[in-house]
Amino acid sequence: MFESAEIGHRLGKSEYKREEPKLRQALLAAQYALLENGKFPVIVLVNGVDGAGKGETVNLFNEWMDPRHVHTHAFGLLTEEERERPEMWRFWRALPPKGRIGIHFGSWYTDPIVQRVLGKDKRAVFKQRLEHIRHFERMLAAEGALVLKLWFHLSKDLQKKRFKKLAADKRTAWRVTKEDWKRFDHYDEFRDVCEDALRETSTGEAPWHVIEGWDHEYRSLTAGKLLLDAINRRLKDGPVAVAPSAPPPEPSIDGRDVLKALDYKAKLPPKRYDRRLDEAQARLAGLTRSKAMKDRSIILVFEGMDAAGKGSTIRRLTRAIDARFYRVIPIAAPTDEERAQPYLWRFWRHVPRHGHAVIFDRSWYGRVLVERVEGFCQEGDWMRAYHEINDFEEQLTTAGAIVAKFWMAVTPEEQLRRFKEREKTPHKRFKITPRTGATARSGRPTSGRSAT
Amino acid sequence: MFESAEIGHRLGKSEYKREEPKLRQALLAAQYALLENGKFPVIVLVNGVDGAGKGETVNLFNEWMDPRHVHTHAFGLLTEEERERPEMWRFWRALPPKGRIGIHFGSWYTDPIVQRVLGKDKRAVFKQRLEHIRHFERMLAAEGALVLKLWFHLSKDLQKKRFKKLAADKRTAWRVTKEDWKRFDHYDEFRDVCEDALRETSTGEAPWHVIEGWDHEYRSLTAGKLLLDAINRRLKDGPVAVAPSAPPPEPSIDGRDVLKALDYKAKLPPKRYDRRLDEAQARLAGLTRSKAMKDRSIILVFEGMDAAGKGSTIRRLTRAIDARFYRVIPIAAPTDEERAQPYLWRFWRHVPRHGHAVIFDRSWYGRVLVERVEGFCQEGDWMRAYHEINDFEEQLTTAGAIVAKFWMAVTPEEQLRRFKEREKTPHKRFKITPRTGATARSGRPTSGRSAT
Repeated sequence: MFESAEIGHRLGKSEYKREEPKLRQALLAAQYALLENGKFPVIVLVNGVDGAGKGETVNLFNEWMDPRHVHTHAFGLLTEEERERPEMWRFWRALPPKGRIGIHFGSWYTDPIVQRVLGKDKRAVFKQRLEHIRHFERMLAAEGALVLKLWFHLSKDLQKKRFKKLAADKRTAWRVTKEDWKRFDHYDEFRDVCEDALRETSTGEAPWHVIEGWDHEYRSLTAGKLLLDAINRRLKDGPVAVAPSAPPPEPSIDGRDVLKALDYKAKLPPKRYDRRLDEAQARLAGLTRSKAMKDRSIILVFEGMDAAGKGSTIRRLTRAIDARFYRVIPIAAPTDEERAQPYLWRFWRHVPRHGHAVIFDRSWYGRVLVERVEGFCQEGDWMRAYHEINDFEEQLTTAGAIVAKFWMAVTPEEQLRRFKEREKTPHKRFKITPRTGATARSGRPTSGRSAT
Repeated sequence: MFESAEIGHRLGKSEYKREEPKLRQALLAAQYALLENGKFPVIVLVNGVDGAGKGETVNLFNEWMDPRHVHTHAFGLLTEEERERPEMWRFWRALPPKGRIGIHFGSWYTDPIVQRVLGKDKRAVFKQRLEHIRHFERMLAAEGALVLKLWFHLSKDLQKKRFKKLAADKRTAWRVTKEDWKRFDHYDEFRDVCEDALRETSTGEAPWHVIEGWDHEYRSLTAGKLLLDAINRRLKDGPVAVAPSAPPPEPSIDGRDVLKALDYKAKLPPKRYDRRLDEAQARLAGLTRSKAMKDRSIILVFEGMDAAGKGSTIRRLTRAIDARFYRVIPIAAPTDEERAQPYLWRFWRHVPRHGHAVIFDRSWYGRVLVERVEGFCQEGDWMRAYHEINDFEEQLTTAGAIVAKFWMAVTPEEQLRRFKEREKTPHKRFKITPRTGATARSGRPTSGRSAT
């Protein structure tokens, strides 16, 4: 994979001088066309070998384009708030909104590669992490994002030469640290692992571009033209078609399903209910105060038909726990900041820190429920959502979250009866809106879009 | 101040049983009326003596109302991200949006009181911090927020009795820590400092309510009714009129001002410009890499007439610094999440961590420029803005930020010439919008609302 970036690519200074102003003007125009179009974000990953000009290129991008609409993020050590959440949280947090360019200096590739080189991750774990990355990038592409992955490479000889040159000059000596030399000693392992990573993640929707990093002129012009072409092509051709990672679940062919198989007449006598509720609430209160919660978080999801009792069930739960411990997130219509991001972004932003609970009243399942049923999203969107949701929840649990999901079911007849009751009972009235009323008869899961 | 909360307030259990369901229903109705109204947030501060029922009351509020629209925040130790920003950043971050209720358990009062009791803040510092709080709350009120401040009090004897009672019961013993007993030893100093704090911050727009905390029934009903009355009154009467903290600057009476006194013909010969720009950029690059930046941040503000050169000046700056170091924030129309918050919120969210720079292309000065001139805000809003801006910038510098503000001036004739030039030059055309064109002749500062 790196051979083509070890052949001594060079560009004459005079050619650079001729080409650079043209490129610069074209990039600026492309950036403004993107801003005006406003339909997709551009995510540029800048990775590669130390000394291969990553930083210089990022600075050049910011110089060539209007830096007011470029979001540059360098990912260093994890902060406290990041450490207590899934690995990808910091990257979700840094995603550029539609119309903007985000440059990620260091990215979701850095840690898997480093851990593998250091031997801390076994090969199987490494492969698995690469698979997660493929899914993540496929999701980004499917959401319309343009993902441009640049890898800056130097051969072993040239990296050594670069370090020596930098170290010899007083003005640049600070750029070569002991760490850099230490890493250089592992050049060969590093190269092997990176080659693996690139090969396995160079997909149709997000291919890698390897750039030889020695010659400033060649490197800069190549990187700039890649960015320019990518934006212009995307503006012209529209989004690439992305095949979903996995097929959605098969529909039932015998007409049976879990919801139909439920016993809707199941009852608990009031006295037993009161006793068992008390017991359960006391137990819950104790558990949330347990020391073990220090490294865990709780994420609860409530879905189901309107008037099936989501709100009141949540209140039975929250009554048992300290208000400082939990947060309830009612999922209503997305804000404009949320609409400018991939679908799951609005849920990622609420992922709790350790020692805390978040209760979702409606959730990411809206994608495969109300949005699917009412046509708020395309077929391709909800088809791929099944797999994306699995990925998301896996990341949550891997980071120590306890994820529990509840489906509240009610028959169409009972739902209608409750709607009518609500109309009559004053303090329940605020829960009834034209939307919920309209779909009552069908018994289908509805809204999650009204504010109540 | 606390005398009225040491007279042994009590309420019979039967009266509580009669009143509580009514209160609960009324609160829920008020909460939904607030949600529907959507014009102001409710900020409830819960402070007071340990063991006086703060936590229980917060839990009750969450139980009585719909917890999906209540944001409860407990402010404990500062996180890494909070420590590197002004003290108030964490509170700005936690403000509830319009229509919602935020309950702040521990608040901006906690640290000033604790530092004063421990003797770490001198009296003068303490007074100053209280003054800042008054300004902050006045701003909240002026922005339409309803600020309800509850103080839960216990006399010295009753606090002791409460601690002993809790400690004697296995189920509640965990609630009384060594720390609590240690603080109890300082009860008298604590009381004096708190009394001072409450007296000095009990303002017309945000008065304190002191509640005797011994009796569960009395305490709960009192707190609940205070909240209910406050919301209903605000819904009925609208926002209170808030006098600005200070008058806006006097207009000039002799017609002279700084802008008119500028030498608009000042020039730098190209050669000297190139040399001095090179020198300055090299110096800037070096300074941003200085170790001293570890505890400092940089906040730059660019304001001025359209076409005065804000964008190009910012680019001269950013060209000199590493892209990982800075972020440029172009101030365009606020998002809907921003519109649901006090005016300065959209700037607070971009306050950088130590070691980083943020460059604002237009800024909070929009309030006293474009918003004032074009009537986007009320007279009272821009009048008070002068003082609020001073407060904001003082907080930034106190936290270690270097704040520098630049006004780019241009004559109306030169501005018009540049607009015409932009129309002709292809890559400059995207900067011209109907808005900027329309106000060209007047030479007034404009827009900051267009996306470019």
